[in-house]
Amino acid sequence: MGKAYDVMAATCPSRTVLHRIGARWTIFVVTALADGPLRFTQLKARIQGITPKVLAETLRALETDGLVTRTQWPANPPHVEYALTSLGCSLWEPLQAVREWAETHVPEILDAQRRAADAGL
Amino acid sequence: MGKAYDVMAATCPSRTVLHRIGARWTIFVVTALADGPLRFTQLKARIQGITPKVLAETLRALETDGLVTRTQWPANPPHVEYALTSLGCSLWEPLQAVREWAETHVPEILDAQRRAADAGL
Repeated sequence: MGKAYDVMAATCPSRTVLHRIGARWTIFVVTALADGPLRFTQLKARIQGITPKVLAETLRALETDGLVTRTQWPANPPHVEYALTSLGCSLWEPLQAVREWAETHVPEILDAQRRAADAGL
Repeated sequence: MGKAYDVMAATCPSRTVLHRIGARWTIFVVTALADGPLRFTQLKARIQGITPKVLAETLRALETDGLVTRTQWPANPPHVEYALTSLGCSLWEPLQAVREWAETHVPEILDAQRRAADAGL
């Protein structure tokens, strides 16, 4: 039996999903929200180097895909909180494996890049 | 004890690594090569929709980072084969988890996108 969805097929909708997961800042937002809901300014502080514009766009995209909720609380002053949905939570585990791989293998990649530069690649 | 590398820090080199992993076609090339070495034309056939230019650029980047080797065999006519290094092989497992997540959750994401469109998000 064939798989229902296959990213190797050009027109499979899983490609769009994969593209969203791979979008530059998705992993940072999912990681930052894994410990619980945060406000926009808190998120921005956790994800060093992200601009407000890009953070807002990333959150909007994740909201559209059902990975993040945006809740406006009727406090005084009112404030907005972002949280992972259960679908967003389920993405945390595979993304953490990717993050750990990246953090673990930095020295090997930097070595390879130096060797490539030396070889004039 | 702090971690040596932390992707949440703006200047950490693990960010560059993460960016390469997240590059649009990396996961496809790593997946295609997981079963063994392939020639350029074979790779292109497995990864539907990729252009020769983008495939060549992706392979070159992965070679620079030490994830893929390019071997020219002195056959007649000579041919070039691409293969995962052991470092590239180690990336396969986390990327497969991401791929499986994408293929598994397509219906939920499509539903969320439809709801967002209906809500005028």
